[in-house]
Amino acid sequence: MAEEVSNKQIVLRDYVKGFPKESDMTVKTSTIKLKVPEDCSDAILVKNLYLSCDPYMRGRMRKTEGSYVDSFTPGSAITGYGVARIVDSSHPNFKKGDLVWGMTGWEEYSLIRSTQGLFKIQHTDVPLSYYTGILGMAGHTAYSGFYEVCSPKKGEFVFISAASGAVGQLVGQFAKLLGCYVVGSAGSKDKVDLLKNKFGFDDAFNYKEEPDLNAALKRYFPDGIDIYFENVGGKMLDAVLLNMKVHGRIAVCGMISQYNLEQPEGVHNLFNLITKRIRMQGFAVFDYYHLYHKFLDMVLPLIKQGKLNYIEDIAEGLESAPGALVGLFYGRNVGKQVVVVSRE
Amino acid sequence: MAEEVSNKQIVLRDYVKGFPKESDMTVKTSTIKLKVPEDCSDAILVKNLYLSCDPYMRGRMRKTEGSYVDSFTPGSAITGYGVARIVDSSHPNFKKGDLVWGMTGWEEYSLIRSTQGLFKIQHTDVPLSYYTGILGMAGHTAYSGFYEVCSPKKGEFVFISAASGAVGQLVGQFAKLLGCYVVGSAGSKDKVDLLKNKFGFDDAFNYKEEPDLNAALKRYFPDGIDIYFENVGGKMLDAVLLNMKVHGRIAVCGMISQYNLEQPEGVHNLFNLITKRIRMQGFAVFDYYHLYHKFLDMVLPLIKQGKLNYIEDIAEGLESAPGALVGLFYGRNVGKQVVVVSRE
Repeated sequence: MAEEVSNKQIVLRDYVKGFPKESDMTVKTSTIKLKVPEDCSDAILVKNLYLSCDPYMRGRMRKTEGSYVDSFTPGSAITGYGVARIVDSSHPNFKKGDLVWGMTGWEEYSLIRSTQGLFKIQHTDVPLSYYTGILGMAGHTAYSGFYEVCSPKKGEFVFISAASGAVGQLVGQFAKLLGCYVVGSAGSKDKVDLLKNKFGFDDAFNYKEEPDLNAALKRYFPDGIDIYFENVGGKMLDAVLLNMKVHGRIAVCGMISQYNLEQPEGVHNLFNLITKRIRMQGFAVFDYYHLYHKFLDMVLPLIKQGKLNYIEDIAEGLESAPGALVGLFYGRNVGKQVVVVSRE
Repeated sequence: MAEEVSNKQIVLRDYVKGFPKESDMTVKTSTIKLKVPEDCSDAILVKNLYLSCDPYMRGRMRKTEGSYVDSFTPGSAITGYGVARIVDSSHPNFKKGDLVWGMTGWEEYSLIRSTQGLFKIQHTDVPLSYYTGILGMAGHTAYSGFYEVCSPKKGEFVFISAASGAVGQLVGQFAKLLGCYVVGSAGSKDKVDLLKNKFGFDDAFNYKEEPDLNAALKRYFPDGIDIYFENVGGKMLDAVLLNMKVHGRIAVCGMISQYNLEQPEGVHNLFNLITKRIRMQGFAVFDYYHLYHKFLDMVLPLIKQGKLNYIEDIAEGLESAPGALVGLFYGRNVGKQVVVVSRE
């Protein structure tokens, strides 16, 4: 008979309006059998090790239909990207002991009924937590967005918003490796320092200290922007549109400044798409999963050679997860926000 | 000695705010020598035959810098696309008697100092006025935007705003020829009837009679829109964003609803670019001039075989030009607005 253990879970109380609060989530303890049920084929049961806090999760706290990811179910454990160890499997491609990353539960143990979009971890000579970020969804997002959407060329002028976040810090480094001129915006002096001193950006600024974003961008890009990697939306996007170069590209990855508003801000300067013949393209990493191994082949050596820097903001213990997630929307995290559930 | 003749001109009095009025322009009569001046190499002197009224001209009535076309010069003749006969030439590639289309003056005779972007008319077995529209800038815009920007595929669902205009009517017919399902919006019952009965659209609606554009689009596209050919901007764009399909494309050709506003309306639903991974791309025909002959090779036979319909709204005489141009912004024209300066 399978061992039954207690299973702490992070549960969403109810759908959220405005800025999320820690108290929108609660810790619940249930029990789970450490075995895939008999009637459950092609499933795995995992012990969760690291969880990823990502901005897109805000959308899931809202009751939505037809979005690209499902809403959370109030009363049930939140789901998100994470790193886990397989405890039991009824799937031929996964076996007990394997490490995986992908969509799992915010709980100690999860039964994962669909292994679609789950990747086996084959390289363990880097910190496992990296698979919540630089080697997981965020890294692959940065890679796909920059190389597949931005059509970057050496010498181009690249602007990245929310640049010290998990995706932004990598996009900036990819752009520098290609020989672009790279400027990032972030929301604190510490983050700006990181961009300039740790991630090698050519320049960076604190958007909160810029009353006129258009003027700020003109200062950093007197000749205009070729590529904008969009993570924030709203006023920043409007200012960027005024400063794009002809045939510029905007890769739309996220719009975190809008996620907690009931009505998104209006963007007024879209006519610049025509006058400057700009391509503005939304994307999501799961359209590029077929490139994951190509991405790893590029990024793993760069990490090992010290040519890519990466900063994690680690929260210890599942109980810290609600605070860590909520912190994203206040810009509290510095670097990739990770929650450690267990170091095994 | 060269003959000197009187030269009626349409002159912009001053830069325009809000909706343009006929009285923003005036008729002025000056004189011109029917010869390219001695010191003017690579220039031509033309007699203007047909002039094209185009929505983009509204932007030129405003003092702007760094746009994709220059502002008009108050006090001088307006410039725009037209069809003309060469009276004299100092350019080796153009000779007296040649017919050309391209940028010329709103006047009886024009000295054209730069022949860049001027096309010699080689096929005269179609009405000459067609080179202000279906065989000129508007037709080439429709062709470039649809085939080069929209990445259309047979069976896709296509929505076109300002669909009875010079560009829209052609985009819809191109889409039908490819086997797409095509719906257009326009601003009167007559235009809607034209779309359905003359241009072969699958359906069409009068946006002025739709208090809820989102609901209207859901009615015409219950499964969503693959391709939106954007001519109007503003509220229509916002409604379309809610109704796009995953991996949809938006070709941004114009935003006529915004041209007379001091501050453009805000567009709120851009987050859909991400959730549906939409490509939204501005374009301008002059980036595709190298495809002009390929375009003609496709379109001329279709016109001669009666497979492309085309409607012109003809204003007689240069004096009618201000009213014809202003009419565009009130949706007065039905089909391509042309001004006849001279039938020779």
